[in-house]
Amino acid sequence: MNQIFSKTEKIRFKHVDFAGIVFYPRFLEMFNDLVEDWFEEALDRPFSKIHETNGIPTVDLKVQFKNAARIGELLTKNLWVKELKNSSMVCGFNFINENEKTVLEGEVTLVNVAIAEDRKTIKAEAFNEEVKENIAKYII
Amino acid sequence: MNQIFSKTEKIRFKHVDFAGIVFYPRFLEMFNDLVEDWFEEALDRPFSKIHETNGIPTVDLKVQFKNAARIGELLTKNLWVKELKNSSMVCGFNFINENEKTVLEGEVTLVNVAIAEDRKTIKAEAFNEEVKENIAKYII
Amino acid sequence: MNQIFSKTEKIRFKHVDFAGIVFYPRFLEMFNDLVEDWFEEALDRPFSKIHETNGIPTVDLKVQFKNAARIGELLTKNLWVKELKNSSMVCGFNFINENEKTVLEGEVTLVNVAIAEDRKTIKAEAFNEEVKENIAKYII
Amino acid sequence: MNQIFSKTEKIRFKHVDFAGIVFYPRFLEMFNDLVEDWFEEALDRPFSKIHETNGIPTVDLKVQFKNAARIGELLTKNLWVKELKNSSMVCGFNFINENEKTVLEGEVTLVNVAIAEDRKTIKAEAFNEEVKENIAKYII
Repeated sequence: MNQIFSKTEKIRFKHVDFAGIVFYPRFLEMFNDLVEDWFEEALDRPFSKIHETNGIPTVDLKVQFKNAARIGELLTKNLWVKELKNSSMVCGFNFINENEKTVLEGEVTLVNVAIAEDRKTIKAEAFNEEVKENIAKYII
Repeated sequence: MNQIFSKTEKIRFKHVDFAGIVFYPRFLEMFNDLVEDWFEEALDRPFSKIHETNGIPTVDLKVQFKNAARIGELLTKNLWVKELKNSSMVCGFNFINENEKTVLEGEVTLVNVAIAEDRKTIKAEAFNEEVKENIAKYII
Repeated sequence: MNQIFSKTEKIRFKHVDFAGIVFYPRFLEMFNDLVEDWFEEALDRPFSKIHETNGIPTVDLKVQFKNAARIGELLTKNLWVKELKNSSMVCGFNFINENEKTVLEGEVTLVNVAIAEDRKTIKAEAFNEEVKENIAKYII
Repeated sequence: MNQIFSKTEKIRFKHVDFAGIVFYPRFLEMFNDLVEDWFEEALDRPFSKIHETNGIPTVDLKVQFKNAARIGELLTKNLWVKELKNSSMVCGFNFINENEKTVLEGEVTLVNVAIAEDRKTIKAEAFNEEVKENIAKYII
């Protein structure tokens, strides 16, 4: 019943290394873009708005890289919610290529934090109810 | 008796995001640099040599981000071996800041692969004996 | 009569620095993406094909950064040809924001090169006629 | 009589592209690191301090890429001042490889700006006298 949030991304020259396959920190930039799109398009919390007072740092990340990806390939990036807590959530994700092969899959824990006015202190803050309801639509 | 491989790295402007803390894909570039230094300085397998015929792709990565890091901080990056197999190994790692706090810690599985001459096929290949002996010095 | 090649790109979290504005090396990644799209969509020379035997290195770059760009802004990236030679071309480009302000503008010289089989030698090679005709449509 | 500010940097796996040569936006990260080191080590204006209230945006950049650089090469990065104005300066720079060949050379205009408290407005601000004196030592 619940949803998966999906976007596509094409592998570009800047993503690949000397072996012609995606350099894995680039995969994590692509994944961060997916989280960013989800917050903007599905949760109504665009990073352009929240990053003055709040942030969504990644505190735990697990990724299995299963198949290489090369320039020109189009990947489907999928994200869903495994567990929603007061101020954090565990999301599952995978990237699938055009041959239906899993390029990578993993799990990430994101925390909602408030940034103090001095921009030096960061502390966990409960998601507000509206955001929580939006996130809940992606629990699988 | 066995060793930990360590390098230091200073947080730079290019590493940090709008919140003033390291954007986590940059941490993984820093970690990749650590593996690269280890292969060159300790294993006698510089990437400048091996990457024409071989590679060391990351197949599994787990990281816990425990404390934020900011511009100007000097991190000590540590790497050791948890398990050495025929053509792969599991390494532990952490980044420690100047206050002895753990910025991140994790575990990575690296595979030794041969790149076919057409540069399209990649397959696992056993580490040679000399490399294996060098790696074994870092088993903890 | 001739054309400008245009694409849009949204400023993302990964692009901006501590000051909340795009870190300029990221602008050059965005520009490289534009060149890549142009080769694929307009010149019928996708990087996924050409990069085994050829490359398009940048030999000269001039950029003026005129207005900052922030997360969430949508930029229009424009590219055209100022001069087409046998194995190189000079392209003009600019990035325009939603308020019609020029974020940056510049000029780049790209050279068509052949990569030798040992992947170590690179030398300039004339564009073939078909590519030349396609490029010529963008001369302004 | 006056000085050149110099640092070395080794080309790493993360810097190179599919052709095995440095992807040029990476060169600009390396250059930004050079400016950052200069501000910290020679001008006594570490980015870790100034970036809460000030910034040094790049407003004009010209680079000629003359020779490719590959993994494992050690480059010497040089910076000097061509012209010092009230709130901006024009710097010359080059990167030289171990065979004394020029990898790249160029010119950059950096502006000293103050960031308003709302972090949205940026405007040019005169360098203070102490910084100006330090910069002046690098005029060539």
